[in-house]
Amino acid sequence: MRPTPRLFVPAITPFHADLTVDLPRLVAFGRRLIAQGADGLAPFGTTSEAASLSVDERMRGLEALASGGIAPDCLIPGTGCAALTDTIRLTGHARALGVRGVLMLPPFYYKPVSTEGLFASFARVIEAVGPGLRVYLYHIPQMTGVPITADLIGRLDLAFPGVVAGLKDSSGNWDNTASLIAAFPHLEFYSASEALLPRNVSAGGAGCISATANVNAAGISALIGALGTAEQETALTRAEAARRAFEKLPLIPAVKAVAALQMRDPGFAHVRPPLVAPGPSHDAAIIEAAALCNGDHVLV
Amino acid sequence: MRPTPRLFVPAITPFHADLTVDLPRLVAFGRRLIAQGADGLAPFGTTSEAASLSVDERMRGLEALASGGIAPDCLIPGTGCAALTDTIRLTGHARALGVRGVLMLPPFYYKPVSTEGLFASFARVIEAVGPGLRVYLYHIPQMTGVPITADLIGRLDLAFPGVVAGLKDSSGNWDNTASLIAAFPHLEFYSASEALLPRNVSAGGAGCISATANVNAAGISALIGALGTAEQETALTRAEAARRAFEKLPLIPAVKAVAALQMRDPGFAHVRPPLVAPGPSHDAAIIEAAALCNGDHVLV
Repeated sequence: MRPTPRLFVPAITPFHADLTVDLPRLVAFGRRLIAQGADGLAPFGTTSEAASLSVDERMRGLEALASGGIAPDCLIPGTGCAALTDTIRLTGHARALGVRGVLMLPPFYYKPVSTEGLFASFARVIEAVGPGLRVYLYHIPQMTGVPITADLIGRLDLAFPGVVAGLKDSSGNWDNTASLIAAFPHLEFYSASEALLPRNVSAGGAGCISATANVNAAGISALIGALGTAEQETALTRAEAARRAFEKLPLIPAVKAVAALQMRDPGFAHVRPPLVAPGPSHDAAIIEAAALCNGDHVLV
Repeated sequence: MRPTPRLFVPAITPFHADLTVDLPRLVAFGRRLIAQGADGLAPFGTTSEAASLSVDERMRGLEALASGGIAPDCLIPGTGCAALTDTIRLTGHARALGVRGVLMLPPFYYKPVSTEGLFASFARVIEAVGPGLRVYLYHIPQMTGVPITADLIGRLDLAFPGVVAGLKDSSGNWDNTASLIAAFPHLEFYSASEALLPRNVSAGGAGCISATANVNAAGISALIGALGTAEQETALTRAEAARRAFEKLPLIPAVKAVAALQMRDPGFAHVRPPLVAPGPSHDAAIIEAAALCNGDHVLV
C-alpha cells in the first residue's frame, strides 16, 4: 500500500529590509506551516528564491530551521546549483544534518547539455556525498532550460538504487508526471500544484510541493484529507480557487505579499532582485488571493 | 578617434584529473595568450566554465592570474552569478584587485524577469561595490534566457554614468550589436566571434572576446593588425576557417582538447560536468581544428 499523500511546502525565504536573510522569520514561518498540517518543508527551491542566495546563506538557513524545531526528517531542502562544487557542498551539509532528502536541480547554466553530462553531474554529487543520501530530482525546465528526462532518471536509478528517491515535476505537464509514475512505480513523484493532487494520488504519486502551500497549507492539507471522500470536490474547488487567484500576479512576490498579510507583518514581503515586489496596481488582486486562502488566517 | 580594436580571451579553466582547478596551468595558459598578442583575458565567463565553479574557486583563480604576471588592467573577469550576494562578493573582490572591468551576466535562474528587476540587480551590485567599478554587461541569451536589452543598458548608463563600460554580445546576432553600437556610441561593444571583427570595428565597436581565441590568439591578433590593409581578407579567411572547424564539435570541450594538443599537455583537456569531453569519434575533427589554428603551435 502507498503511504498517505504528503504536502511539503517550498517555504519562502523572508528578508530583512536590507535583503539579508531573516532567520527568525524563516523559522517562525516554517513552524507555522507544520502546525497548519504540512508534512514538511522543501525550503531553498524556486519559491524560496534559493537561486538568489549564496551557498552560505542557504546553509545558515537550513541550520536555523533544523535547530528551530523543524525535525530533519521533515526537511527536503533544495541543493542543486549551477556549479558542481556548490551542489556537492550544499548536499553534503544537508545530509550531515539528517534531512529526509534533498531536492536537486540539474546544473542550469549550460544548454543544451547531454544526458551523459547530466548523469555525470548527479553521479559526482552522489559519490562525493556518500551513503545515506536520498535525492529528489527537480524538473522545472521553464527555469533551468535543462529537463530531467525518463532516460536520465532510469540511468541514475540503475546506478544508484535507493539514492534516487523521486522527482518533483514543476513542468505543469500532467502527462509527463503520469508517464514517470508509470515508468518508475518505486519512486515518489510530487506535483507542483495542488490542482493536480487528485490525479497525482490516483496515479500512484506521492503528493505535492506547491508554492501556494505557503499561504494555503491548511486548505491543501484539508484536500489531502478529503481525497476519496465526499468532501473531495469541495476541498478541491476551494484550493483551486485560491491557486487561480495568483495566476494574474507575479507568483513568488505575490505569495510573499499574502504571507505578509496573513502574518500581519510586512517584513515577510521583501524579495531579492531580480524579483520585484508587486506594485499598488496589484493590491486588489493580492487582497483577493489572501481572502481565497484559508479564511481564518486572512486580515480582510 | 577610437582606440585600436582589442582582443580579450575568455580563457579556459584547466582542471586537475580530480576536477579541482589547476591554478599553475591556468596562469601558464594566460601568460601564453598575452604573449601571443591578446590584449588581455576575460576569464571566468562561459568558455571558462565559470558557472561550474564556486565563488571561492573563481576568486582563487583570479588571484592566481593577477599574482602570476597578468597585469590587472588586462583582466575583465566574469563576476555575474545567479545569486545577488555571490555577484556582489565576486565583483568587489575583482575591483579590489584593480581589474580593468568585470563582465557581468544578469541573474540567470528566474525567467522571465522584468527590466525593473534586472536594473535593480545590477544597481545593487554597483552600489554595494562602490567607486572605481567598470561593468561590461554580458548578453548571452542562449545560456541565460535573460537578454540584456537596449532599454536596460540605457537605464543603467543614465543612473551610473562611467560605470557601465560596455557589453559583450554573445547572441551571434550582428544586427543587435550594430544597433547597440549606434545607440550607445560612448560604450565599448565586443563581438563574441572573430568572424564579426571587421564589421564590429567598422561600425565603431571595440573588438572581440571569442572562445576560439584560446587556441588562435595569434591568428586573431593578426586579423586585428590587418584590418583596413591589403592583408585583411587573407587574415579573415584564415581565422574564419579555424573557427568553422569547431562548428561540428562541442565548442568548449573541443577548445580545451585543441589547447591540450597545442600545449602538448593532455591536462588541459579536462572539463567539469555537465560538459563532456569529446569522444574518439571527434578525434579527426579536433586534429583538423588544431591544424587550422596557428600552424606553428600545432603538433600534427
